[in-house]
Amino acid sequence: MIVIMKADVKMNEVSAVIARIEDAGFRVHLSEGEERTIVGVIGNGRPLDRGQMERMSGVERCITILKPFKLANREFKPSGTTFPIKDNLIGGNEIVIMAGPCSVESREQIIETAIACKEAGAHILRGGAFKPRSSPYSFQGLGEEGLEYLAAAREATGMPIVTEVMEPSLVSLVSQYADVLQIGARNMQNYALLHAVGKSHHPVLLKRGMSNTMEEWLMSAEYILNHGNTRVMLCERGIRTFERYTRNTFDINAIPVMKEMSHLPVIADPSHATGKWEYVSAAAKAAVAAGADGLIIEVHPRPEEALSDGVQSLKPARFVTLVEQLKMVAQAVGRSIPQPT
Amino acid sequence: MIVIMKADVKMNEVSAVIARIEDAGFRVHLSEGEERTIVGVIGNGRPLDRGQMERMSGVERCITILKPFKLANREFKPSGTTFPIKDNLIGGNEIVIMAGPCSVESREQIIETAIACKEAGAHILRGGAFKPRSSPYSFQGLGEEGLEYLAAAREATGMPIVTEVMEPSLVSLVSQYADVLQIGARNMQNYALLHAVGKSHHPVLLKRGMSNTMEEWLMSAEYILNHGNTRVMLCERGIRTFERYTRNTFDINAIPVMKEMSHLPVIADPSHATGKWEYVSAAAKAAVAAGADGLIIEVHPRPEEALSDGVQSLKPARFVTLVEQLKMVAQAVGRSIPQPT
Amino acid sequence: MIVIMKADVKMNEVSAVIARIEDAGFRVHLSEGEERTIVGVIGNGRPLDRGQMERMSGVERCITILKPFKLANREFKPSGTTFPIKDNLIGGNEIVIMAGPCSVESREQIIETAIACKEAGAHILRGGAFKPRSSPYSFQGLGEEGLEYLAAAREATGMPIVTEVMEPSLVSLVSQYADVLQIGARNMQNYALLHAVGKSHHPVLLKRGMSNTMEEWLMSAEYILNHGNTRVMLCERGIRTFERYTRNTFDINAIPVMKEMSHLPVIADPSHATGKWEYVSAAAKAAVAAGADGLIIEVHPRPEEALSDGVQSLKPARFVTLVEQLKMVAQAVGRSIPQPT
Amino acid sequence: MIVIMKADVKMNEVSAVIARIEDAGFRVHLSEGEERTIVGVIGNGRPLDRGQMERMSGVERCITILKPFKLANREFKPSGTTFPIKDNLIGGNEIVIMAGPCSVESREQIIETAIACKEAGAHILRGGAFKPRSSPYSFQGLGEEGLEYLAAAREATGMPIVTEVMEPSLVSLVSQYADVLQIGARNMQNYALLHAVGKSHHPVLLKRGMSNTMEEWLMSAEYILNHGNTRVMLCERGIRTFERYTRNTFDINAIPVMKEMSHLPVIADPSHATGKWEYVSAAAKAAVAAGADGLIIEVHPRPEEALSDGVQSLKPARFVTLVEQLKMVAQAVGRSIPQPT
Repeated sequence: MIVIMKADVKMNEVSAVIARIEDAGFRVHLSEGEERTIVGVIGNGRPLDRGQMERMSGVERCITILKPFKLANREFKPSGTTFPIKDNLIGGNEIVIMAGPCSVESREQIIETAIACKEAGAHILRGGAFKPRSSPYSFQGLGEEGLEYLAAAREATGMPIVTEVMEPSLVSLVSQYADVLQIGARNMQNYALLHAVGKSHHPVLLKRGMSNTMEEWLMSAEYILNHGNTRVMLCERGIRTFERYTRNTFDINAIPVMKEMSHLPVIADPSHATGKWEYVSAAAKAAVAAGADGLIIEVHPRPEEALSDGVQSLKPARFVTLVEQLKMVAQAVGRSIPQPT
Repeated sequence: MIVIMKADVKMNEVSAVIARIEDAGFRVHLSEGEERTIVGVIGNGRPLDRGQMERMSGVERCITILKPFKLANREFKPSGTTFPIKDNLIGGNEIVIMAGPCSVESREQIIETAIACKEAGAHILRGGAFKPRSSPYSFQGLGEEGLEYLAAAREATGMPIVTEVMEPSLVSLVSQYADVLQIGARNMQNYALLHAVGKSHHPVLLKRGMSNTMEEWLMSAEYILNHGNTRVMLCERGIRTFERYTRNTFDINAIPVMKEMSHLPVIADPSHATGKWEYVSAAAKAAVAAGADGLIIEVHPRPEEALSDGVQSLKPARFVTLVEQLKMVAQAVGRSIPQPT
Repeated sequence: MIVIMKADVKMNEVSAVIARIEDAGFRVHLSEGEERTIVGVIGNGRPLDRGQMERMSGVERCITILKPFKLANREFKPSGTTFPIKDNLIGGNEIVIMAGPCSVESREQIIETAIACKEAGAHILRGGAFKPRSSPYSFQGLGEEGLEYLAAAREATGMPIVTEVMEPSLVSLVSQYADVLQIGARNMQNYALLHAVGKSHHPVLLKRGMSNTMEEWLMSAEYILNHGNTRVMLCERGIRTFERYTRNTFDINAIPVMKEMSHLPVIADPSHATGKWEYVSAAAKAAVAAGADGLIIEVHPRPEEALSDGVQSLKPARFVTLVEQLKMVAQAVGRSIPQPT
Repeated sequence: MIVIMKADVKMNEVSAVIARIEDAGFRVHLSEGEERTIVGVIGNGRPLDRGQMERMSGVERCITILKPFKLANREFKPSGTTFPIKDNLIGGNEIVIMAGPCSVESREQIIETAIACKEAGAHILRGGAFKPRSSPYSFQGLGEEGLEYLAAAREATGMPIVTEVMEPSLVSLVSQYADVLQIGARNMQNYALLHAVGKSHHPVLLKRGMSNTMEEWLMSAEYILNHGNTRVMLCERGIRTFERYTRNTFDINAIPVMKEMSHLPVIADPSHATGKWEYVSAAAKAAVAAGADGLIIEVHPRPEEALSDGVQSLKPARFVTLVEQLKMVAQAVGRSIPQPT
């Protein structure tokens, strides 16, 4: 940390800052410039509290030098993290495709969709059993019944399942059915939930909150990693901006930035990132071109009857075409999309 | 709802839309303009799903006419909601002040602060026992021990307590100690938690999420109200923008807008809304001038030692001055800040 | 400036950075921490280019210590700037009120409005002759004819005039009529225009761009001040966010922040900052409570016929009431709103 | 337009709205629902002023049905616009690459860079002679001297030139040198400038303002098109959000949205959209995958000495590699990047 003192700082204020740093077990590196005195903090240990330092008399502001995330930092683990979800290696050269409806609506619907997705080339089945909805009057998901239908679809197709868990007390239940636990955007900073999925040691798909910085996103990953659960995927799903022609703004920059900053695999969700099926294909291809390790795409056999997010769901026929195009884009950037097993 | 058809819509597409609306038990009002055909939906009932309608062939977009919140809507309850927290009437002509440290740090700290706040003129004591922190390495609060200290401070001063609850399974515990349950900004759309505090029938302070629209905020209130828990306060605490000189951008507009749209009391949090103690007083006075029904302000006897948010905490002496100024501003807008009982 | 080197920096990379700093005439302060090497730049002179330094091999990032604005900085001019606009002192203890229609529409309209505004207690007349409109099909203002009508209204009431200038080649013309030149939000970074109004030595009302940081705003003021034109007012008029119930988000924080960072007077525009007349009064009172030196408010005798911005314009009767309320709020914060002369 | 009346609207208020619509030469379509009365406006003509209607007594809000842009709307010109810049067809199946330094710094620098860019496969040379800089103390460009050096580089390589024009009075001068006039992000709503480049009938590259919606962007294009200048390219260069790891957030969604809404060619600027050279390649490939008709990329032979934007400039060697990769991505999406002539 670097402590920048005010222009009119007094000697005793600088002394107090130095004393505090030294009391905390660090060494001090003092630099008296012509316009500002700067106090550098040297040493390795539990970081000083930035807020406390900034509240000391004579301090203008503090600057932290190191990134606040450690376990998620590529600096401390230069090679990328890879792990299998059934037969699919996540984070390797091959790109994985997750697809399925926003919500599980019935046994028939999810099995029909799963079969169509697998035939099109998807590797993992998505589908929500517990749904976060901004209105209490909207469809809230089938709950455990939905989990059972997902399991039936897995049995029918062999596809592993990713589904959202919304509260700590349900992590155990959802883990019995799901191959991957999804943390939704609204819950990215639901710390009780992060602790719970960390402890579960189940693979996690961590969606970025709709107005969270990439740094906060990695800090949320840190909560999970800190429990020794290293199977974490970061999922960019669009952020909230002033733009109104799309539901969210797909932060495509996040893909190369996260690949540089962190060793964790990065998945893109072009369905939420655009919010309109017309733009999903373009966004999906862009994500692969930018270096995403996987995609999660909403597919529904009859979007006009979907109980949620129909407007951003692809029909199976279009999804088939998209997967073919994605294979070509993947190849163009030196990667591949394997046939599902 | 109004359904706007595409410029090149076909007859059978319009017919399908009409059939669907009528099947759902509504009447149709067709308007064929020179450039667009518009289908109006008439009738009162469970709303049609906008996403489904927009996914129908030939539909350009749908517009909902009514606000999606009902129980929170002033249209359905023209007079403002008022309720007492101990001796303090919330939502009336008198303005209530909540004050205290960000975190409960020790028995002595919270009692000392409570006494100072009450002497300055505060009515309700705030203090966090469970703390949402973006880093897993930061102080996470004293937990139940913190709740006990809060209770001790209440006993010492007579001040009722507002404190945050972060997960559904702790609502029961926190309710045993707290007079008001606070839902933090990060949890504004933690629906399991909203259900839990709704069912608790305890008064709730619902903070606005840092990038949530006012409409989403009222929809979250709706989750709580829908359980018959009508003692809900809305708390504006700043939103996230591109600006970097302040921690958040205080959306002062939200005060008059919420007072017009909803009957719920509106509280302002100038501490989080600015993030720097230097600006808290100006923001607090602005909030009262704009019509807030109350304030929640961070006060700490030694901010430079605070375990969280010291940089935005006022010292008691400054808080004393602020309350005096607030009384004058309140009077200027026809309201008052009573002496604590 | 402080240069933070990468974790794996090589000796020769550090040497190159040092050499470059010394070549530019600065001294170097080297600090080798346990995890990062940091190079401090000491000395006073033309600042090093941050981008160039960051592009050097082995550099992680650079941090600038001093604020980039000088002439606008309160550090270099601790007392506030004050100057008269006719009989009104800007930046002093008295608060000035500017009011009038969005656009000048006719001689009768502007004179009628000016008289009503003055009677209500306004000091300066606003009105647009050249209008920036997002659509080329909208009313673009009366141009020079509008300036003449403004001059007629000044003659009729004695009120000085503030009006917008949109292009450098018109600064001379507009200066012949206007007492204050307004730079609109869309032109905050129209540097040719900033140079032109700087050279004009006419008083300037500089609106904040709708998505500009406060720092950029002060840098734009710096362009004007740099020509020796010190009569600059900063005008906060709301910023663009994700919120949709209001036209803009009034950044009330900007008032105390600008008063602390800069010596320039700060004016608030509650009309644009809210975009709906229903919320203008609350926002105006908040601005005064937060420390604004003045207000600029849209008033129109018949808003439902206004050629622009009718939806955010107050009718004269409401404006009369508002001024009375503002006087009380001003008094509550130790200031006053004088009677117009 | 649709006018939604308030819940408690009175008969005479509805009558007044109807009278006003009919007075303006439109027909009325009245729909009395159970909770709201809605007045539809039918007919083709100069649109009613939304603000005026919303200010009428009893009106809750108005909704415009048609997009406000006409000449830029694909609805009115279904086939895409194409036009040549020298030998390069813009908007066709082939993708065009513009490259060069942020600023023209010297004759040698621009010629050296132009040769390197052309060898790498770029078609058009970019370079700023007039530079918009947020600080008056930063390098402001070489002005006309820079234009002369650009002309020399064109002579040396045969590459046409795109360069920024910042004020109306310079459009004539810049047009003498430039093949394409660039309107920078800060000037997207500088209407005097838009009029001037419209009248010039020179090809225009219109950058999106950093916080402008896509609709506003098309309205600015409309200003240019309205002068009969149809050779307009839209350039997405990133928008401003809360994210701090990148300079801007590349709104990749804008590419498919603009291609659907408008017939104008869409160019992407991955240099500004990311702000760091490390991420430029990923963003450029994403843009091509998403359907961009061209790219504009900053290239500098010695970025660590660049007088502006060095941190986001590619070195020629990396640019060579990027163009090879882009050709493969283009092919994957059914397009191609031709060899420069």
